[in-house]
Amino acid sequence: MKKLINNPENVVRESLEGLAVAHPDLVKVHFDPNYVVRADAPAQGKVAVISGGGSGHEPMHGGYVGIGMLAAACPGAVFTSPTPDQMFEATKAVNGGAGVLHIVKNYTGDVMNFDLAADLARGEGINVESVLVNDDVAVEDSLYTAGRRGVGSTVLAEKLCGAAAEAGRPLNQVVEVFNKVKNGGRSMGMALTSCTVPHAGKPTFDLPEDEMEIGIGIHGEPGRMRTKVRPADEVVDMMMDPILKDVEFRDGDPVLLFVNGMGGTPLIELYIVYRKAHEIAMRRGLRVVRNLIGPYITSLEMAGTSITVLKMDDDLIKLWDAPVRTPALRWGV
Amino acid sequence: MKKLINNPENVVRESLEGLAVAHPDLVKVHFDPNYVVRADAPAQGKVAVISGGGSGHEPMHGGYVGIGMLAAACPGAVFTSPTPDQMFEATKAVNGGAGVLHIVKNYTGDVMNFDLAADLARGEGINVESVLVNDDVAVEDSLYTAGRRGVGSTVLAEKLCGAAAEAGRPLNQVVEVFNKVKNGGRSMGMALTSCTVPHAGKPTFDLPEDEMEIGIGIHGEPGRMRTKVRPADEVVDMMMDPILKDVEFRDGDPVLLFVNGMGGTPLIELYIVYRKAHEIAMRRGLRVVRNLIGPYITSLEMAGTSITVLKMDDDLIKLWDAPVRTPALRWGV
Repeated sequence: MKKLINNPENVVRESLEGLAVAHPDLVKVHFDPNYVVRADAPAQGKVAVISGGGSGHEPMHGGYVGIGMLAAACPGAVFTSPTPDQMFEATKAVNGGAGVLHIVKNYTGDVMNFDLAADLARGEGINVESVLVNDDVAVEDSLYTAGRRGVGSTVLAEKLCGAAAEAGRPLNQVVEVFNKVKNGGRSMGMALTSCTVPHAGKPTFDLPEDEMEIGIGIHGEPGRMRTKVRPADEVVDMMMDPILKDVEFRDGDPVLLFVNGMGGTPLIELYIVYRKAHEIAMRRGLRVVRNLIGPYITSLEMAGTSITVLKMDDDLIKLWDAPVRTPALRWGV
Repeated sequence: MKKLINNPENVVRESLEGLAVAHPDLVKVHFDPNYVVRADAPAQGKVAVISGGGSGHEPMHGGYVGIGMLAAACPGAVFTSPTPDQMFEATKAVNGGAGVLHIVKNYTGDVMNFDLAADLARGEGINVESVLVNDDVAVEDSLYTAGRRGVGSTVLAEKLCGAAAEAGRPLNQVVEVFNKVKNGGRSMGMALTSCTVPHAGKPTFDLPEDEMEIGIGIHGEPGRMRTKVRPADEVVDMMMDPILKDVEFRDGDPVLLFVNGMGGTPLIELYIVYRKAHEIAMRRGLRVVRNLIGPYITSLEMAGTSITVLKMDDDLIKLWDAPVRTPALRWGV
């Protein structure tokens, strides 16, 4: 295992310490329990949007805490759900009186622990709504999941709901924004290599030198198929086809096209993937009105990519364009 | 070789095609010869800042073309200098009458070809200044270089000079900004793995499973030493020490601290590196007033990092904070 780490036990803590000293203007990091919170939290009278999950997917979620996006993020151990007390403490820390939205990715541990945290917070009189991301069209049920996994749409939901909260919209309207992402966003991923969880010390799975896995999950959960490595254009076809079949698109529908890097794939390749994904979307009659290209929801150093297509409308475009200032996503401010 | 590509021969072209369809609001891509130019070029009456070099370092340089940064970028084949006609055509395309600055990284091919292009452009009456980045403290002379290599400072110089040009400063003042970066910016890198140039099809060098290379160049040029893989904190020490010895810093000096990913190293590790680099800078009496953390000057999928320390002053801070909108670096707009 070759990594720029010290002790595998301290990876999450030391990385969070790095985040804290790097961005004191944007975030504060609390330890034991671990959570990352906006430096200016709580925002009185505004909805707070929270997410969290296992570490190893950076910049998600801690890198998205800041102005116009998340109010807090709860990082678990690598590829392991955070504990209920992390979400509970974070919920209390960001509660500004207008309610708190928990954005939960559909993994069994996350769902259970966020549920517990929401119950605890409600017991203290905090208005918590919980929503579930399950946008991965690759497989029903998986190693960590009942139903579909939550992947790329999470990043988009965090930006869009965060913008709605920042604009002062009430909790039910922030949930409405989320539901648009849930209904109109679909994703699929693939890997050329495995990744290595630091405390495991060896690759999560074996993938022969000439094979790739289509439909893989962000923790290396099995996908749809293994096949010999194929040209990028074919790989993109194999992901875009199931994505575009899963949502009812109409000719001329505006979409956001998100080509994500899994961590070990360089940008020069992601733009080759984007080129083909864009071409397929256009051929299908869609209008790509916004895009995002880069490593935004990763799986440690896994080589691979995922594609997310999200149906947009005028309000979602407005929320997407709204100023955001976080360690990993920033524009307009 | 596992890559998300089609034909190795078409990697640069197809990636540029992806850049073009992804960001038509920011850039235009010209082919044969290849160059990326601001969508609104030329900016009449303003200095134009150009850079270029081998591909494989994305987002550098094409991802830095746009508002407040580069007016054009000339991508060569992977790890291969662009040709003089690329820079010549790009220079003509962005010339707005106030002169053109060529930011050249110190590699033999780049220096020679940019020199030729500058001569050709001057022959057409364009006022061209050429400046050389040679910030890598690791080694004097190298596989591709006479003297020091140009690495991480390039990204900072492109942002700072681009901001000066955008603000309407004359060419000599944009050169002055560059000279501050040249005098006050130093870098060093390291690798855990090699990378594979697509048309070569095999790793550029061999690095045993338990070794790393300190002081490596961005094309895999030999560094200072190979050693067993060590904890991240020791690795950072081995880079920060020569960097901080090379420039005369005074107690309280403001600096920008840039922790760069080589392409295959995930963000969770870069923040562990940042944590230690920041601590060392503080202990040395420096004030880290700005930072940049992520894969900004890469070597394909190489795993590793580089650190750049740049001495700042009030004017450089102002230029750093100025709005920038490019495919890869964006804030304030």
